[in-house]
Amino acid sequence: MMSHSDLSRFFEPEAVAVFGSMQSRSGTAYGVIKNMLDFGFSGKIYPVNPSSTEVLDLNVYSNIDEIAANIDLAIIIISPTAVPEVVQQCAQKGIRAAIVISEGFAEASEEGGGLQSQLVDISRRNGIRILGPNTLGVLNTSNYLVTGPYLLGYNKPVRGSIGYCAQSGLLTFGTHPVRDRAYPISKVCDFGNKSDVNEVDLLDYLADDPDTKVIAMHLEDIKDGRRFMEAAARVIPRKPVLIFKPGRNEVSARAAASHTGALAGNDQVYEDAFKQTGIIRLSSWQEFWEVPRVFASQPLPRGNRVAIVTATGGAGVILIDEAVRAGLVVPEFKAETKSKLAELSPRLVNNPVDVGPVMVVADEPFSVYEEVVPAVLADENVDCAVIVIHGGPHVASVFRRLTHHISRISKPVTVFCYGINLAEMEETSRQLEGLGLATYLDLETAVRALGVAAAYSRINSGLRNPGYA
Amino acid sequence: MMSHSDLSRFFEPEAVAVFGSMQSRSGTAYGVIKNMLDFGFSGKIYPVNPSSTEVLDLNVYSNIDEIAANIDLAIIIISPTAVPEVVQQCAQKGIRAAIVISEGFAEASEEGGGLQSQLVDISRRNGIRILGPNTLGVLNTSNYLVTGPYLLGYNKPVRGSIGYCAQSGLLTFGTHPVRDRAYPISKVCDFGNKSDVNEVDLLDYLADDPDTKVIAMHLEDIKDGRRFMEAAARVIPRKPVLIFKPGRNEVSARAAASHTGALAGNDQVYEDAFKQTGIIRLSSWQEFWEVPRVFASQPLPRGNRVAIVTATGGAGVILIDEAVRAGLVVPEFKAETKSKLAELSPRLVNNPVDVGPVMVVADEPFSVYEEVVPAVLADENVDCAVIVIHGGPHVASVFRRLTHHISRISKPVTVFCYGINLAEMEETSRQLEGLGLATYLDLETAVRALGVAAAYSRINSGLRNPGYA
Repeated sequence: MMSHSDLSRFFEPEAVAVFGSMQSRSGTAYGVIKNMLDFGFSGKIYPVNPSSTEVLDLNVYSNIDEIAANIDLAIIIISPTAVPEVVQQCAQKGIRAAIVISEGFAEASEEGGGLQSQLVDISRRNGIRILGPNTLGVLNTSNYLVTGPYLLGYNKPVRGSIGYCAQSGLLTFGTHPVRDRAYPISKVCDFGNKSDVNEVDLLDYLADDPDTKVIAMHLEDIKDGRRFMEAAARVIPRKPVLIFKPGRNEVSARAAASHTGALAGNDQVYEDAFKQTGIIRLSSWQEFWEVPRVFASQPLPRGNRVAIVTATGGAGVILIDEAVRAGLVVPEFKAETKSKLAELSPRLVNNPVDVGPVMVVADEPFSVYEEVVPAVLADENVDCAVIVIHGGPHVASVFRRLTHHISRISKPVTVFCYGINLAEMEETSRQLEGLGLATYLDLETAVRALGVAAAYSRINSGLRNPGYA
Repeated sequence: MMSHSDLSRFFEPEAVAVFGSMQSRSGTAYGVIKNMLDFGFSGKIYPVNPSSTEVLDLNVYSNIDEIAANIDLAIIIISPTAVPEVVQQCAQKGIRAAIVISEGFAEASEEGGGLQSQLVDISRRNGIRILGPNTLGVLNTSNYLVTGPYLLGYNKPVRGSIGYCAQSGLLTFGTHPVRDRAYPISKVCDFGNKSDVNEVDLLDYLADDPDTKVIAMHLEDIKDGRRFMEAAARVIPRKPVLIFKPGRNEVSARAAASHTGALAGNDQVYEDAFKQTGIIRLSSWQEFWEVPRVFASQPLPRGNRVAIVTATGGAGVILIDEAVRAGLVVPEFKAETKSKLAELSPRLVNNPVDVGPVMVVADEPFSVYEEVVPAVLADENVDCAVIVIHGGPHVASVFRRLTHHISRISKPVTVFCYGINLAEMEETSRQLEGLGLATYLDLETAVRALGVAAAYSRINSGLRNPGYA
């Protein structure tokens, strides 16, 4: 067994060797190196290929033994049949961590399964840990290490505190607009076939990672349920563990098995174990990506009472439904809040606060948010708030003035941006994220995220104060 | 009671009078006129304001009696207290339809409620129908009539066959990226306070509208449940009626009442009545907008068996879960389909078909879709298909070659576009919509839409073949 600190080589290497084709196209070792250079990886890169001499202004080594320096991590994207030998050489060279990007192992064929078993043997005998095969590997925004082979230059993510781990490329960094949606990311890991490094290792590592405040994990199977729940139970008092686990029925479980070579098991068993452990289950691709951001930028709510401030009454009604579904309540405001709001307009005293009619007759329509939001956040009946606002150039300045109040009050706030122009909404959302707000382009998700935050808050205080949960 | 044909004045007027401020800013009568000019309204526009003489190169009339021409529709956005008199004058002039955009009626105060009652009286006594007050009015893409006062020039929607009706601006045309998301729209109607024209009138009108293939309706309350269900029952054999009705709990029902002055009633009663009538209930803001497009461009499925073709195995597993939740089944392919697919690769024979591993080693990765999609659509075990593809410039040409096959086979297909660049994904999605495909940027919605299509197909054939449902 490897100790925790060893897994840091996968995320915090000072020197990496990259094995594979140096031909300048996406999906190769060249792609891996190009991505690291584009993102600005702070460590040293050693390309390895017997038939190349130079790539992207880097010297190419013909084999691992030619490299004099200490290598912390090997990144391997070569023909699957050649992988065991290269991993063996790496181990002999003293390298303790390897990411095998290549496909064609247990997920592909019986023969591939045999190759994968060889890798596991080499790992066990030599103490080299292996992530993959069949993975995009990792991303770390604190040193901008990135090991995916598909060209990502455009998609350099914002530094933040969400740790995303997934068993599919669709839920990591290679195929999602992480830059355009400004997810505040600390670490990403694609588990691949989990021949060695798996979700338990990642939980352990991310639990201790000071850059990670929330762990979002997509899993199709769990290798060792008991160890996983034990690891999660250690993490949850410190940070939330959010799991998106499809494969809820027999057909999907079988499909999961066929593309990662894993068995999913009975879903109800997972459901019960998650609940008992305090793991929060997410239920869609969109929730997986969007819910964690509330933990990255917002304080935890002390309770489940939500204020809704909206420019359209219709959104208010929809949000109440979703709030209730997410375990929140929509309280009445206290008398003093009501009278403060009534000074602005007698139509603003109820929760949800529909600011639309006031905006229509105001000279500076958006200034009403600057009055209403601090008032409702200060209300003792309110633990968190969701704000519905039309996206556009004006919004960032409204919130620039508001963030002062919001951060002083220390209650979580989410924002739903609507509008007629997608690019403008997206830009507003990035600006607000930059101001430290959790911003959504889907209406219901904005309140569901607060529901998850309140659920974690309850779990967390139950763990801290047993008997009061 | 007004006959059906009269409601056509709201959507198909040849001449409209617009009452209100001609000052060039959003939210005024000027805004209404500017929008109509920007969209290219095919009828005549008569601005009316006693203190203006010209707006946007149009002559402004000081009152309705100055206009010699026949006016089919009055659009009114003036101070609420002045509205009754203007509507009365319109009625006397022989105008049979008025849209009252102004706010400040039953939704605002008791006094406003009194004004609204006056409008209802005038309507009944004079046979002038009123849409609103407190509405953005209507949009018709066959003549590009648009009556919303907020500047929309950018947001001119694509002509199509979805009729959207809603009780909130958030679910009509003023505050949603209808152009950027390429919703194929026939008509839009914001019900507003429903003082006169309501959801029953709209169902009747859209039932007969040859441009409308599917009706998507957001409702916070239903004025006359029995008449509504009767009207829906008349429509459903001809086109699907999809309802998004929030206000599921007491708090949200009360909030609905406060912003449109309506009472929502017990949700379970609605739920049962919808089911009995064959109305399909949508459950989120996103479903309201996105699900209808499958009916606009795709044929109805003959059953509920879905094929999944995906470039990422992880998406396949998630889609199966969602397919099952949406009432679909994920069948095995027939032996002849399997052998056809096996010729391409033995890894492609199962449903979901994960084309990812084949793409990785192919010279032209996307060509595998051109082989796989026709093969699975032709399978007798398959009624519909969802395709997961990376958005980008290559995708439109892939589908340009595929649409020939797809349209010949006449089974509905939805596409989920993913990628690292939002603008590129959105552009791909518009291109595919232009090719007649139903395209989604949310994974689960792509299959949920097929679930709704299959549900309607079953309802519809049950109505046509009683006893075989």
